Amino acid sequence: MSTAMIQTNSKLDLVMERVVDVPRELVWAAWTKPEHIKKWFTPAPWTTVDCEIDLRPGGIFRTVMRSPEGQESPHVGCYLEIVPNEKLVWTSALGPAYRPAIRAAVTGSCDELYFTAVITLEAQGARTKYTAVVLHGDEESTKKHEAMGFHEGWGAALDQLVALARTL
Amino acid sequence: MSTAMIQTNSKLDLVMERVVDVPRELVWAAWTKPEHIKKWFTPAPWTTVDCEIDLRPGGIFRTVMRSPEGQESPHVGCYLEIVPNEKLVWTSALGPAYRPAIRAAVTGSCDELYFTAVITLEAQGARTKYTAVVLHGDEESTKKHEAMGFHEGWGAALDQLVALARTL
Repeated sequence: MSTAMIQTNSKLDLVMERVVDVPRELVWAAWTKPEHIKKWFTPAPWTTVDCEIDLRPGGIFRTVMRSPEGQESPHVGCYLEIVPNEKLVWTSALGPAYRPAIRAAVTGSCDELYFTAVITLEAQGARTKYTAVVLHGDEESTKKHEAMGFHEGWGAALDQLVALARTL
Repeated sequence: MSTAMIQTNSKLDLVMERVVDVPRELVWAAWTKPEHIKKWFTPAPWTTVDCEIDLRPGGIFRTVMRSPEGQESPHVGCYLEIVPNEKLVWTSALGPAYRPAIRAAVTGSCDELYFTAVITLEAQGARTKYTAVVLHGDEESTKKHEAMGFHEGWGAALDQLVALARTL
């Protein structure tokens, strides 16, 4: 079944595009196996200490990040589309089996940051054109995500991914 | 590709189950064609005055309801899973192409109600076992949805669906 095209919006999306020097099958493996995610997903000196992946639509994508001081922050998302070696879509706005994420009404805060990540891989010989598009629902979320260091963070993580993929 | 099983939670879900006296192909048609949705989706005296359906994962499901006084309220959701005549999953937590719905941070309110609806149809001869499971992220959203008249509203809408399906 065909799926809807991603429609980008320059005011609502954060985009990272880079050609990396590893084949896309290895980039895909790095994104879809918990033992790999733990090695690259969080920019040092933070670490990813746990990861759960149920790689199918509606499946859970859970990570636990640990700060240098030892504080842990869990993140739960839901996979939406999976095209092996080509496209991976997941969102933080839903949890496993598509259940909506816990809302502001409960936490007493309107500060949650929800996004949908679309990772696209294109083979360029033995290299890969890597595109990450991160969709937000409003400009405030987009600006907040950017101010949190989106470009530096996702860029540093991608460096770690490439370093790992070279060892696979 | 297999998809994740829906995991129900009695504290977070609202469920409506009924055997209706029309074949499931007609129930499916009623749920997936805008001209049909406009005739049954909103319990009278409210009406559905507009409907847009892009029936594929990531596609938009948009309706506009009108009150007896003429006030219109638009609703935008996103399809997640489509198994013709069997299963339809959509969520209000995402908009078209999986973009997160606009958040409390922008509207200045924590009052949005997000849910994921899972409609399952099972043939029982010429009749259909109709199950609607509506998933929420927290108990407050569930209680609010129930207090808004979930059971009466979805029940009255299903009566209208059955009446329409008999004419198809």
